[in-house]
Amino acid sequence: MSAKIFPTAQDAENAFYEALERCDLEGMMAVWAEDEEIICVHPTGPRLSGQDQVRESWAKLFSAGARARLQVSQQVAISGMMLSVHSVFEVFSLEDAKPGDLRPAPIVATNVYLRTAAGWRMIVHHASPAPAQPEPAPRSGAGPKTLH
Amino acid sequence: MSAKIFPTAQDAENAFYEALERCDLEGMMAVWAEDEEIICVHPTGPRLSGQDQVRESWAKLFSAGARARLQVSQQVAISGMMLSVHSVFEVFSLEDAKPGDLRPAPIVATNVYLRTAAGWRMIVHHASPAPAQPEPAPRSGAGPKTLH
Repeated sequence: MSAKIFPTAQDAENAFYEALERCDLEGMMAVWAEDEEIICVHPTGPRLSGQDQVRESWAKLFSAGARARLQVSQQVAISGMMLSVHSVFEVFSLEDAKPGDLRPAPIVATNVYLRTAAGWRMIVHHASPAPAQPEPAPRSGAGPKTLH
Repeated sequence: MSAKIFPTAQDAENAFYEALERCDLEGMMAVWAEDEEIICVHPTGPRLSGQDQVRESWAKLFSAGARARLQVSQQVAISGMMLSVHSVFEVFSLEDAKPGDLRPAPIVATNVYLRTAAGWRMIVHHASPAPAQPEPAPRSGAGPKTLH
């Protein structure tokens, strides 16, 4: 068991995307809550729940997947005392992509984090392909909305 | 402006799916928070944010759409004081479907509700097509998990 503690939901999100980019299964699972009600939906995939299904899915992805650079952007975050909800775009680009290659479609993800006795952990990751969208105007820099 | 108050996140969710089934735009928008950071992702669609984009998308769907029966199932809910996160399957069936017609693929949805001064309101709806899945064993009936 990992003893990693994430003091904020953003720390958990950073660790999630670092693990995803590095194909690091233990790093990935250290982000998830040790709870049977965790939910993970990979793009176009089924709804997975519980530690076993979620671990197995990442293990499969990480063993099969080409390594990719990952850019996470356009975060909208709403945080309560116990739960924090982030909506982001994930844009993957293969490390061996050449100029002119088609850019992969962005993924839109809803990530939910729970404050547990062991710090903030992910309880929901719902990702699905999104149509390519124009970059919106930069936000005003107000930062995440916090409810408490 | 609607004066509808939803005392629980579940009440808001019930109203959301009733409005969706009835193609009731005002009923639908009465469920959403009056907040510019609301997020709505329709299946395979772009990420919409803010009241205007969200209203426009439902107006378009409701004016174009065939009326459909909607079955919502396999809810997993996690609730804090201020935020409540529900994961559900939505299965639509057209009212004029004949026996033997292909059943539409289920939709997996992540719905997030916020406790506002005007009761619980939706702030995130993220829906995407899911592969057909076998019905899992019924849950133990423990009901939604409540953190407070």
